[in-house]
Amino acid sequence: MKEISLNLAYKLLAPRPTVIVTTISKDGIVNAAPFSFTMPISMDPPIVAFASVPEHDTTKNIKETKEFVMNLVHEDIIEMMWITAKKFPRDVNELEKANLTEIKSKVVSPPKIKESFGHLECKAIKIEEIGDHCLIVGKVVNATVKKNCIKDELLNVEKIKPVLHVGGKKFVIGDHVRFIHDI
Amino acid sequence: MKEISLNLAYKLLAPRPTVIVTTISKDGIVNAAPFSFTMPISMDPPIVAFASVPEHDTTKNIKETKEFVMNLVHEDIIEMMWITAKKFPRDVNELEKANLTEIKSKVVSPPKIKESFGHLECKAIKIEEIGDHCLIVGKVVNATVKKNCIKDELLNVEKIKPVLHVGGKKFVIGDHVRFIHDI
Repeated sequence: MKEISLNLAYKLLAPRPTVIVTTISKDGIVNAAPFSFTMPISMDPPIVAFASVPEHDTTKNIKETKEFVMNLVHEDIIEMMWITAKKFPRDVNELEKANLTEIKSKVVSPPKIKESFGHLECKAIKIEEIGDHCLIVGKVVNATVKKNCIKDELLNVEKIKPVLHVGGKKFVIGDHVRFIHDI
Repeated sequence: MKEISLNLAYKLLAPRPTVIVTTISKDGIVNAAPFSFTMPISMDPPIVAFASVPEHDTTKNIKETKEFVMNLVHEDIIEMMWITAKKFPRDVNELEKANLTEIKSKVVSPPKIKESFGHLECKAIKIEEIGDHCLIVGKVVNATVKKNCIKDELLNVEKIKPVLHVGGKKFVIGDHVRFIHDI
């Protein structure tokens, strides 16, 4: 057992579910960027969270318009997701650069990504700087999935092949299933 | 694409890194329980978060003593982790029931679990009810890993085989690696 630098600590809490968050500025410019500091907080009411740096367009847009969509990422769109991670000027729509298709959300203004296997439309209920990130907490106001994404009320990971972030350019495809047997 | 019940929404944000959180009550009783609503929030300073229901012993203990340890879970201890999830009275130490070994933490009072591949000793800096859970945010004050857990500054998932929670008794072993190539 050895101590590690505290700045490496977060790398142990991995691999993590990866989402592309879509937002819209007050001027109507769509932004998309991937995040893996993500988690559910509450089941009923449904509330999720992610963390973004304060200077990121995603954070700025959510401060302006209080809405976002979490678009879930699976193996088929991993390379496209990576393109949305690149630094583009604020007036560039990363979805166009990544050849991802916008579709209209049902409740919120930011679009959903057609190619994603699932979408959580969210209204921000809290935006708070904690350390070097902003914690962004959102109430889920609409959720959609592609066919066959849910099996026995759980994510059908064998079929969907969700993408999980280890760090940098290293990802995990989360399809290696283990069921627990009570002992 | 179909709408799903909002109460299923959190199941899309999966599979998630699984930790056993160890805490201690003001009377010195150790508690251990698994959680997968987990995420890093900040890199520098190092800050992590998880969510627990308010009535859980883990939440009660952290409210009392403001300390906890996140013990990371890998394939070797998946069945032991599951035992710590069972409902025992508050005066029962789940680690003993699960045949997991306590070792002394360096900075905080709750023990670490010897069999875990890594440990984040944390001081709680925020405990806040959000929806049906408590968001518990902790500053990492010490971090330890077993040998060979980190490779090229990232979690060596191929070797460690971290456990990720899909939901219920369904887990994923997070060792199916994909590297991204810039395009």
